[in-house]
Amino acid sequence: MSELDDLMDLRVRTIDGWPVPGVQFRDINPLLADARGLSLVIGALQHDVTAAQWGRIDLVAGIEARGFILGAPLAAALGVGFVPVRKQGKLPGSLRTVTYDLEYGTASLELQVDAVLPGMRVLLVDDVLATGGTAAAAVSLLRSVGAQVAGFVTLIELPVLGGRAALPDVAVRALRAY
Amino acid sequence: MSELDDLMDLRVRTIDGWPVPGVQFRDINPLLADARGLSLVIGALQHDVTAAQWGRIDLVAGIEARGFILGAPLAAALGVGFVPVRKQGKLPGSLRTVTYDLEYGTASLELQVDAVLPGMRVLLVDDVLATGGTAAAAVSLLRSVGAQVAGFVTLIELPVLGGRAALPDVAVRALRAY
Repeated sequence: MSELDDLMDLRVRTIDGWPVPGVQFRDINPLLADARGLSLVIGALQHDVTAAQWGRIDLVAGIEARGFILGAPLAAALGVGFVPVRKQGKLPGSLRTVTYDLEYGTASLELQVDAVLPGMRVLLVDDVLATGGTAAAAVSLLRSVGAQVAGFVTLIELPVLGGRAALPDVAVRALRAY
Repeated sequence: MSELDDLMDLRVRTIDGWPVPGVQFRDINPLLADARGLSLVIGALQHDVTAAQWGRIDLVAGIEARGFILGAPLAAALGVGFVPVRKQGKLPGSLRTVTYDLEYGTASLELQVDAVLPGMRVLLVDDVLATGGTAAAAVSLLRSVGAQVAGFVTLIELPVLGGRAALPDVAVRALRAY
């Protein structure tokens, strides 16, 4: 076990029945509130991206909102800029919007059209890979403005929900599976 | 003019009439999408906090959602943990909630009760100080769980909106006034 694995055992909290009955929510806030936890998580994400040999990374894109908390420090560590992929209505300017299915109903994500230049290699970041619906929507947004998705990196993966199948042509890394 | 001032002139975009008519919105996304911009902003925030001599910082709290993009890398740079102050309904567990007035209607912010230990000195971070209503609500949340607010740091201040008057007993620093 690495020090990060130990800390995740201690400080990733499972909350039953949130946000809806039947879900076991993995709350990463206590991990990130710990100085060593935040430092180890960002270091491990950076290490994973480097070890994955995904090639040049020009930009990090984070998915609202926990993807901002991981993505922005990772962008700073990698020495690149950060762009937010946001929920509908949160971004000004010229936008691309993608609407995707949830278990009940739909949701939309938005990206500023000029946030990414065509040909840029973008690393996508979120906290959890579950069904992959949100990540797939973010990938399609990035590609719609001409970006190449270098890879998708996440702190937690829930393999039983089959998220990698929703991202068939995206390289995926997760620090920990539950 | 510093290099950051020059970059802010170039890459902070003014959008008229967003999110509502009459507002001149300062869009910081192009600044943070720039590798040098993100690096200079985080470095300047860290420098400002150190120069302010606010004493020990145990934790950074960021206000949803742009406060996450600045606060999380600042926490990593300062070597402390990060806690999110979120909009209502976004956090699991035992919470404190504060409701505050907006121009029309009200809004609520939430904090996990166990996110901050009593006596911890917390640095509060957001992207913009406007009327100060949101920042004042976040300060009252932090104090309600026994934290000391070491200071509030922001990228942009809009002095005409009088935000410092809403934070009479909080030390405030802003990188840039418009």
